[in-house]
Parts: sequence; structure tokens; C-alpha cells
Amino acid sequence: MDNVLIKLYKKPKLKNPILIEGLPGVGNVGKVAAEYLLSKLKAMKLADIYSKYFPPQVLINDDGTLYLVKNELYYVKTKGQNDLIFLVGDYQGMSNEGQFELSYTVLEIAKMFNVKLIYTLGGFGTGQLSDKPRVFGAATNSKIVDDLKKFDVIFSAGEPSNGIVGAAGLLLGIGMNFFNMEGACLMGETSGYFTDPKGAMAVLKVLVSILKLDIDFSELESKIQALNELTQKMQEQVEQKIKKDDLGYIG
Amino acid sequence: MDNVLIKLYKKPKLKNPILIEGLPGVGNVGKVAAEYLLSKLKAMKLADIYSKYFPPQVLINDDGTLYLVKNELYYVKTKGQNDLIFLVGDYQGMSNEGQFELSYTVLEIAKMFNVKLIYTLGGFGTGQLSDKPRVFGAATNSKIVDDLKKFDVIFSAGEPSNGIVGAAGLLLGIGMNFFNMEGACLMGETSGYFTDPKGAMAVLKVLVSILKLDIDFSELESKIQALNELTQKMQEQVEQKIKKDDLGYIG
Amino acid sequence: MDNVLIKLYKKPKLKNPILIEGLPGVGNVGKVAAEYLLSKLKAMKLADIYSKYFPPQVLINDDGTLYLVKNELYYVKTKGQNDLIFLVGDYQGMSNEGQFELSYTVLEIAKMFNVKLIYTLGGFGTGQLSDKPRVFGAATNSKIVDDLKKFDVIFSAGEPSNGIVGAAGLLLGIGMNFFNMEGACLMGETSGYFTDPKGAMAVLKVLVSILKLDIDFSELESKIQALNELTQKMQEQVEQKIKKDDLGYIG
Amino acid sequence: MDNVLIKLYKKPKLKNPILIEGLPGVGNVGKVAAEYLLSKLKAMKLADIYSKYFPPQVLINDDGTLYLVKNELYYVKTKGQNDLIFLVGDYQGMSNEGQFELSYTVLEIAKMFNVKLIYTLGGFGTGQLSDKPRVFGAATNSKIVDDLKKFDVIFSAGEPSNGIVGAAGLLLGIGMNFFNMEGACLMGETSGYFTDPKGAMAVLKVLVSILKLDIDFSELESKIQALNELTQKMQEQVEQKIKKDDLGYIG
Repeated sequence: MDNVLIKLYKKPKLKNPILIEGLPGVGNVGKVAAEYLLSKLKAMKLADIYSKYFPPQVLINDDGTLYLVKNELYYVKTKGQNDLIFLVGDYQGMSNEGQFELSYTVLEIAKMFNVKLIYTLGGFGTGQLSDKPRVFGAATNSKIVDDLKKFDVIFSAGEPSNGIVGAAGLLLGIGMNFFNMEGACLMGETSGYFTDPKGAMAVLKVLVSILKLDIDFSELESKIQALNELTQKMQEQVEQKIKKDDLGYIG
Repeated sequence: MDNVLIKLYKKPKLKNPILIEGLPGVGNVGKVAAEYLLSKLKAMKLADIYSKYFPPQVLINDDGTLYLVKNELYYVKTKGQNDLIFLVGDYQGMSNEGQFELSYTVLEIAKMFNVKLIYTLGGFGTGQLSDKPRVFGAATNSKIVDDLKKFDVIFSAGEPSNGIVGAAGLLLGIGMNFFNMEGACLMGETSGYFTDPKGAMAVLKVLVSILKLDIDFSELESKIQALNELTQKMQEQVEQKIKKDDLGYIG
Repeated sequence: MDNVLIKLYKKPKLKNPILIEGLPGVGNVGKVAAEYLLSKLKAMKLADIYSKYFPPQVLINDDGTLYLVKNELYYVKTKGQNDLIFLVGDYQGMSNEGQFELSYTVLEIAKMFNVKLIYTLGGFGTGQLSDKPRVFGAATNSKIVDDLKKFDVIFSAGEPSNGIVGAAGLLLGIGMNFFNMEGACLMGETSGYFTDPKGAMAVLKVLVSILKLDIDFSELESKIQALNELTQKMQEQVEQKIKKDDLGYIG
Repeated sequence: MDNVLIKLYKKPKLKNPILIEGLPGVGNVGKVAAEYLLSKLKAMKLADIYSKYFPPQVLINDDGTLYLVKNELYYVKTKGQNDLIFLVGDYQGMSNEGQFELSYTVLEIAKMFNVKLIYTLGGFGTGQLSDKPRVFGAATNSKIVDDLKKFDVIFSAGEPSNGIVGAAGLLLGIGMNFFNMEGACLMGETSGYFTDPKGAMAVLKVLVSILKLDIDFSELESKIQALNELTQKMQEQVEQKIKKDDLGYIG
């Protein structure tokens, strides 16, 4: 069995395509952002990627059917200068070797479609809730750094201090060294404690500005609203409990 | 040394064979069910499968002879429309990669015999003892889902929530994608705390109905009876202890 | 780099050679026994085995020189019917895959010299000190089981309950299946808490009887004597301390 | 994707080059020493080494650009008898197999340049701060041991007791066995609790004596001075706290 198995469903002609990655990670910020964008753009399935580096597992759909865990590539033709290819999926590789091989394989496919630019999306875990999550960046060259600063992307010396782990880092690191690709990672600030639509929104707003896309954010806003209400309710309960306990001490 | 080593003992002509998997897992439900069925059907050894993905271990028979840990394939010719091939064994693969390669190899052998349908057997761990264990399912397509519902197999959205891990999942997931095979996983409810003949019986009753087999369940019933008595005795002892402790408090 | 690297120093003509394994393991019983025997027989170096499955480590000799961790093969020509090949070394393989590949490689070399019989030596860990350690066995066929019983080797149904892990098991399990070799594992009873010359002596006495070798055990007896004295001293100290504590309570 | 990927930037003619290794390790002694030396000698980049055995990670420079984690080779032409090649980097291999393959690959490159002698630099962790860290050694042959003793390198039977783990050991152990190279490991005494410029200085002083190099140590001395002041401040705070606590008990 090959380490990575590709099912390529189509070979569309794509116009200067940009690869956008959003796999599970800190706060699932990248995953939520990329999946929201590809769904709004009605992207089409390009390929399924199966691998022995994923967990040995099938997942079950609501109708009782099952599917092997995988990564997926989608594509969308745009009216702008660049078509888009999306990388999303259930998991990242489970081992160092797997992470490297999976990213390398994705880049080989990207190369086939002549991808020259990559945006990887991820979360910047702070351990704290943030009302207005900022977006941090890192890029393969300083020209991109300068360009992204215009979109309020923050480049802060030594942050994240441990660099970028996983596909969001590797696609750029391997891409620039072995595939002649450039690009950047956009990281939305997030507590990292749960799947975070607010961090995803922050990242997405930057990305659509860069790509000059027109996206309806209402569904994502609803999710944020729902999460806000949940968070507030929990906070009130905690506060009431503290009050009661205080009274208890007084009495 | 190859990663997986096959000793194929025979190449019988099999009539539309169905692959039935029952390897160690939650409550050993699949293992007990598959081994009971193949023993009752007097299945014949087809192949031994050795692998560096199993633990580096030999096991010792009661007569002092030893054997290398392995998986085994058995086959049985039936009077019905489908002959059967069984996959049983001492262990599952010890790593992600091993799990994938072992399942892939089994499917390559199954392909040789023209297998088109797979039933994998497993446990659905609930952490609780159940008097009448239910049987949950997941299948490779919705037609099989519908068929299995007629046999009281339960398809419950999002259960098991983490999908199916190991060979019971992979044989179906890899089979449907790369070997043009369909099938289902039947999962017997079980506490998961010990080898559970009751969960195995539940799964087996569904399976023999589907396969229209006539099986003598008396031996399995004896095991369940013995386990029931053991469980009851333990429960009585616990209750008596609680009573004594209560009296202690009163005194 | 190959997974396993062999330096074969000679290719002596050997007369029906028997392979004897004694690598580190429970109580280092096998290692002590095999190294004592090969030293007494003045065995000659046959090969060094290096591997990426060993720890990435060099060890340092007392004179400040270093050497890469390895396994070693030695051979000795005897006056009896069988010459001997010894497998000893610093480590066993660190992963399942490594264990399998290393044993397989050793068997390939053994095959070159036409080995047909293997004795692997190990410890049977009981967690308790034993005055007269017994020797347990497991063999590749029942004839060898019967033969070994004459040498007071114990074959006890289901012991060791988890079989034999590591090279002592794999050489036999792989050897019987893929190299047409037969053999047995001799396991000396040992607490397993420290390197145990007493368990090694027990195993060795059985082995030299089988092989009809005449070996001087005085050095090994000195080691046992020294260990006995150490153990007794520690026990006396513990007993005195208990006595003192008892007096403390009385006073 | 190959397990190890080399980007060789030049192929300079080098005069009897010596390989000097200083990768991350105990107290980062080797890393600090090697990087200081190559910087003072204005060594030139020879090659970048990328590998799936490193963590799947990119690191971020202060200007916001990122790079894939790697090892690096540098070279310097000297006025003496030996040119130098340096091995430095962000990480060592993350698995046993990776450690072996990376060292083997480095030696293949070293072979290309006809390297015959290797010095690996590392820390000897004692768990204690040392005012005047000693330098311990281990070498591939006893002649080098004798030579190094003249430079006050300590060869102490059985120290370090667990040998040398990682590239500092493997380059020598593999080099002497498979590449006909000789060499030594120089280990600077260090607590091992933090990056230790003092241990690095000790190692470096020995190395430059051996190599008859003239190096300005002032920058490294500043780092040691800064660390000394920090350590002293911390110690004073601890002592004052102890005094206060003592007074508390008196009062």
C-alpha cells in the first residue's frame, strides 16, 4: 500500500491558482475559515487524499454510511486573476514523517496545476478569549510580509515563538524550498480551547480582502452570535455562583 | 523482511464469498462472534498472516509449543449463495501504518477470491452492563443501511461518535475506495470491561439472520450463563458488604 | 542507510551449528548465560550487527575509546556433533518493526551457516527471589518439548502467560515459519529486579547438559556468592531496622 | 519525498577538512561552541539539510519571514593544515531511525570532501553549576585518547555512564565503522538546565588549542558574564528569602 493514495477526480484548467489550506489545528481556525470560504464559493471536489499517516479510522455520516478519514482538495474558478484550490480534511498526519509526506504530496498536486502562491490558515493560541481577534502572519519572503502589513496582518518578532507546526507551516516551508512557491500563513488569535468561529472570521476577512472576493459572512456571524450567547450565559452562571458563595460567607 | 508475510495454504474455488472480520477489540465482541461462527461452521484454514506490525512476541500453547502471533484467514463453503472467508487473529496492527497495511493486504487476498461484500464485527462500548445488548451499524452505502434496519440494526446519527477504529473500520473504508467492495460493520453493545459473549451473541444473531445460516448457540449461551452467574455473585457480595457497613454505622 | 548493517568478519565451515541467543532482557538472564558460555568456550567473533533500530548511541570503554551499540555473533568449533553460533549484544531492537527485522536478519545469517536448531535463553520474571530458580521452556514442536522435560525443564500450561517477547521469542517464531528451523526457549526463574547470575546459572546448567559441554562454573559461582552476601547483608540491615523500630514503640 | 533532502550550494576544494559538529543537546554546549566558532571564522554556507525526521515545523525570523527547520553545513578555508566543515542546526532527528539516517547522510557528504577526522561537541550534564567546567572526552581510537589528554581532556572510566546519545556519538560511531573516519567527542561539563556558554567556552578552548586557531572570545565572555550576574542575583534573592523565613520562625 502506498503511503499516500490520491483519487484525482478532474483535471480542470486553472488560471494562476492559489492554494488555500485549512486543516484541523489550534481552535480549528484554519479549518472553519477554509471550509466556510469553499462552501460560499461553491467549490468543486478535485481530489481525495487517503493515507496510512491518518488515524486508522472511518467516520460515520448521519445517514449511517461511513467514509475513510481523508483530506480533500476543492477548486473554484473565479472572475479575478487567480482561481483557487482548497485543502481541507478530517485530520493532519499523525507522525512527523506523515506530516512531511502529506504536505509534499499536496504540493506535487499543486505543482501539476501550476500553483505559485499559497495561503495557509491557522490559529494563534493565546489561552485567552479575545473580543477582537488579531491576525498574525509569517511569509516566505519579505515582500509578502510588507504587502500583508497593509491588510493589518501583524508580524511580531518571535511570535508565535515556537514557529508554525503542521501543514500550515510545512506547505510553505517545503513549497519555498522544493517547489518554487511563495506564500504566507495567516493566524487568527484564538483561546484555542474550542472550535473558534471568531478567529476564523478574522482570518477570513483578511483573506477575502487580499483575494478581492465578495463573501456573505452572515452564517459565520450567526455562529459567532450563538457562541457569544453561550459564553455570556456561562459567565453569568459563574458570577451568580460566586455571589451566592460570598453571601454564604457573610451569613 | 517484508512488512506483511502471507502463508496461503490453499486456493479453493469460492462462490461469491463474503469476508467476515472479527479481530480483538472493544469487549472482544467481534473476535468472540467470528471465532464462534467459524468453529460451528467447521471452517478450514486458508492463510496465516505474520507481520512486523504485530507485537514481537510468540504465544505458548498448553502443550508447551509456541507460535508466532498472527492473523488467520479461514473459509467455509456453504449451501447458500455465498461462501464465507473469516479474518481472525491474536492482535491488530500496533501502529497506524500497520493497521492500514494489514487491512490492505487482507483485501488484496479477498480480491483474489473475488470478495465483493464485507461484514466486520465489533463492540460498541457503553461503559455499562446491558441485559439486552443492541446492535449498531454503519455501512458503505445507504442501500445496505436500509437492508440492515430490517434486521433491527440501529443506525443512530453520530454513534459511535468517534467512528470505527481499527480493522473493522479500515476494511470497509479501504475496501469501498480501492477494491470496489461494499459492506457493513455490526457493533454489539458491550460494557467493554471484559470479553463479552453477550454482545457477541447479539451481533451473531443478526449476522446469521442476514446470511440465513443455521447455528447452534448453546455453547455461547453456556458462556453467557456462566458470566451471568459470576456477575450476580459479585453483585451480591458487594450488596452484602454495603449492608454490613450500614449496620456498622447504626451500631 | 540500510536498516541493518552487517560486518561479517569470517566465513568458517561449521558443523551442524546451533544458534544460541542471549540478549538483554528480564534479569539479563539470557545475556549473562550466553556471554559466560561463549567466554568459557573461547568463541571467536563472526560478525557485528549495527542498526538504526538500536538507540542512537555510542558506549565508552574504560580506556576512553567508544563503540557504536551493536549485536554480535560469535562461533566456536566443538568436539561434539554441533558447532555453536552465539548472538549477544548491547540492546534489542527499540521498535516492533526493529525487533522483527533484526531477528530476521540474524536468521538469514544463521541460514548461511546451515543452522537448523536454535536455543534462546531468557528470564522468567516472578518478582520474587528464588533460592533454586527453575527453568521453564517453550519449543517449536512437541518432540523438543518431550526431550527437554528429561532435563527438568518445566512446561507449564499458560506460562509465561504473555508468551515470550523479543528476540528470544521471535528467532524461534520466525525461524520455524520462514527458515525451517526448530528450537526452544529456556527461561530461568528470576526476580527480574537486577542482573541475575543465579537465574543464568540455572539456564546454563540445562543448556550444557543438552549440548554435552564441559564448562567451569566457578566464576559464575563467585558472582552468585557475592550477590548472595550482598543480599543477606541488606536483609540483615532491614531486619535490624525493624527491630529498632519495634523497640521504639515499646519504649 | 526522500527521507533527507540536501541542498548543496557549492563544491569547494577543501584541504584535509575536519568535520566539527555542534547540534542542540545537553546545555546546548555543542551548539553554542560550534556556532560561535563558525561565526568568528566567517564560515560560508555549504549545504542545507531538510528531513522528515525533524519536527514538522517552520520557524519565524524577526522580520516575519519563515524557514523550514533544518541542519546546515558551513565550511572555512584556514591557513593551517586542515580546512573545516561545520554541522549545526535547529534540531536533531526526532526518532532513532532519523538520528541514524541523518548522521549517515552527513557522513556521505563529508566523504565527498574527503573528511578523515571528526570532532563532535557536546555537554556532560552533571545537574550542578560548575565554576570551572571540565572537558570530558571519548575517541574512536586510543591514540586520539592519548593526544587529547595533553589538552587536559578527561577520560574517566565509565563516564558518561550511558555513553553519548545523538549525533555527537553517531557521527563517530558510524564514521569509524563505515566511512573510515576517526575522531573524538569533547563534552563540556554543564548543569544541563539551560543553554550554557561557560561549558561551551571550555569545549571551545580545547578545540582551538587542538586546531591551533586564534579566536576572539570576548563576545562569549560577555555572555558568560551576563549569565553569572543573573545567576548571582537569583541566588541573593533566594538567600534573602531564606533569611526572612528564618526571622519569621524566631519571631
